[in-house]
Amino acid sequence: MSKKIRYGIIGVGSQGTLYANLLSGKSEPLIPGKPVLESIPHCTLGALCDIDPVVEDKCKERFPEYPFFTDWKEMISSGHVDAVVTVVPHYLHPEIAIYCLEHGMPVLVEKPAGVYSKAVSKMNECAEAHPDTAFGIMFNQRTNPLYQHIKSILESKTLGEIRRTCWINNAWWRPDSYYRQSDWRATWGGEGGGILVNQAPHQLDLWQWMCGSPSMVYAKCLYGSHRDIEVENDVTVVTEYPNGATGSFIACTHDPLGTDRLEIDLDKGKIVVDNSSTATVYYLNRSEAEMNASMTMYEVMAMVQSSDSLEDKGLFTTETFESSDVYGMQHMEVLENFARHILHGLPLLAPGSDGINGVNLANAILLSDWLGTPVEFPVDEDVYLAELNKRIAKEGKFPLQNHEVLPC
Amino acid sequence: MSKKIRYGIIGVGSQGTLYANLLSGKSEPLIPGKPVLESIPHCTLGALCDIDPVVEDKCKERFPEYPFFTDWKEMISSGHVDAVVTVVPHYLHPEIAIYCLEHGMPVLVEKPAGVYSKAVSKMNECAEAHPDTAFGIMFNQRTNPLYQHIKSILESKTLGEIRRTCWINNAWWRPDSYYRQSDWRATWGGEGGGILVNQAPHQLDLWQWMCGSPSMVYAKCLYGSHRDIEVENDVTVVTEYPNGATGSFIACTHDPLGTDRLEIDLDKGKIVVDNSSTATVYYLNRSEAEMNASMTMYEVMAMVQSSDSLEDKGLFTTETFESSDVYGMQHMEVLENFARHILHGLPLLAPGSDGINGVNLANAILLSDWLGTPVEFPVDEDVYLAELNKRIAKEGKFPLQNHEVLPC
Repeated sequence: MSKKIRYGIIGVGSQGTLYANLLSGKSEPLIPGKPVLESIPHCTLGALCDIDPVVEDKCKERFPEYPFFTDWKEMISSGHVDAVVTVVPHYLHPEIAIYCLEHGMPVLVEKPAGVYSKAVSKMNECAEAHPDTAFGIMFNQRTNPLYQHIKSILESKTLGEIRRTCWINNAWWRPDSYYRQSDWRATWGGEGGGILVNQAPHQLDLWQWMCGSPSMVYAKCLYGSHRDIEVENDVTVVTEYPNGATGSFIACTHDPLGTDRLEIDLDKGKIVVDNSSTATVYYLNRSEAEMNASMTMYEVMAMVQSSDSLEDKGLFTTETFESSDVYGMQHMEVLENFARHILHGLPLLAPGSDGINGVNLANAILLSDWLGTPVEFPVDEDVYLAELNKRIAKEGKFPLQNHEVLPC
Repeated sequence: MSKKIRYGIIGVGSQGTLYANLLSGKSEPLIPGKPVLESIPHCTLGALCDIDPVVEDKCKERFPEYPFFTDWKEMISSGHVDAVVTVVPHYLHPEIAIYCLEHGMPVLVEKPAGVYSKAVSKMNECAEAHPDTAFGIMFNQRTNPLYQHIKSILESKTLGEIRRTCWINNAWWRPDSYYRQSDWRATWGGEGGGILVNQAPHQLDLWQWMCGSPSMVYAKCLYGSHRDIEVENDVTVVTEYPNGATGSFIACTHDPLGTDRLEIDLDKGKIVVDNSSTATVYYLNRSEAEMNASMTMYEVMAMVQSSDSLEDKGLFTTETFESSDVYGMQHMEVLENFARHILHGLPLLAPGSDGINGVNLANAILLSDWLGTPVEFPVDEDVYLAELNKRIAKEGKFPLQNHEVLPC
């Protein structure tokens, strides 16, 4: 194996082109006037694959020195690539990943890992049966030092147990022109949903990566809210956790002034993240339980009615940190991490099997709304697939989903 | 009738004492070092009433020039008062108000209007049958110019229709010592609930006063969360509205760093209120529908990826306003408004019949959690009362509630 991992890119749309540019060193400034991103030492471009003739022409013009394939299985067996990235519609991720795993080809799947958990579980079972083949997922936002620091605070239990989480995550404004870009976009049969499979999967992952998975989910979803689409683009979610904590998640694509605010309440403090870029951690000087046990109503009233801030009164201290997120940099980090994992055994930033969490949560949110009742998490995979297929059938544009055809 | 309305105060606990001080001109600075509040021109103290001998002693010492009663019916017929305020446990509000209305005595009920809607409906029916007797409710926070301005913006439709509301309303920290103050506090039979009947009724009113009532409610409630009580002190609520909008309401009593943040998303902008004191109104220069119809993905990406703020790009303008809320001042305004309503027909800031909205919402929140399912709003009054009585029976400390005994 060469010292650089040669990536084969399956699907060269806008995201696939970004990876091809980064890996080939042909990257242009992602933001006009900014410098191009630096190179990736342990990886390079190996080959490209797409079924669209227009994309083929573009690739042959921009990347003439790299082999181009119209059949991803041919690319995998060509000897030109050491790993692949699946930059294809979400439904195809498990199918391609399973084939790769069975053929010893390291595979980095795009998010979300799939549309319905039955297929993603099958992909994970296959990965478990092939532990020697690298399997990762493009959860690039996990590379954000801000979330890594929050995760480390939560894991350290410095702030005790979580009592409540709340993420208002509305900064996903998309006009109808976005949804008209391609026929599969924002359909049940082609894309498998709306905001839960397209815009919010990173947050559905990060939320669980930091705060754990819920035990119960209730959701109210709106479909085509202020948009000409059939899928969900506005969700309001309530979660319960095994330790008795509660959570909320709110997301939509029709708010151009989108709010992005994550709050985590804990036994000994609070964490607030604004715009995914500024985090404030409040450390209580005494735990809430100690305050509860010792404070009198007189002290409480004095605390509430005086005009001094609670921080001035010595109730807590704060720590603030920022993250300047450069678009594209995170994806490079994941590509590089996956290459070094293959070459040198570096631990994965995001193991492929972690992809199931976000899919489980998206499935639970939709199923709760479809059934009009809270659901236990994770939901029954067969029930979800049956309900999804009802909507694909009603839509009448794409074939029903059948996990039985998956090869593993 | 004298030129000043002589108020009779039923229940002279901490809140009743506040009113007695304000009305008698014996007010002390509510915040040490601040001046006392100015007098109330159209009202005064008439008499006091309480069943507690300790309170009686205190009243006779501090307010020797005002008649004291142990029977509120005697006070009402004494000729010493022109109106009464019901500063008693919540269950008693409808009973006393109905008696007052039937005896032509103007009555200002404390919030909440009652515990269960069956009794409050009966009170409202009685008020309807006695339109000449003044009937108000102490929704003092409606006097806050900040909420009045927001209500006027919403009613003007300058920002179009509401799409989403979200109120994180956790600034209600109460230690166990608070709950131990009296036996009826934080019980099903004595107080009728926890945060929904004690701390949050103002917000349950303001939310509906500004944004309207929901058509559906789902809630997850925690009972005695981090506290030694049986009633709810942590609620997470999802609402739907007749126009298809959605809402969230989150409140608890165990967060000493309590967040208070109200967000209202609309067709043409957004309103955000922090700490019930600072409001920011975002006015979109073009409505979201116009932006959606006209913007291309290129423009969207340029908008999202450039580092200029959206305000710099001319997407919206903002208006900010503050409210400095002096504790006690609002209550004085409601007392004065009610007096001038009786004397001169001034419109009521808060008609008594409005009290049902907050009670309906509190009932729907608890019933949804008790039944584990979303409920239509308002909920069936008999179902709620039956479920409440189950909890009073299980608690075993107080008699069951029976609206049949109400006099009207």
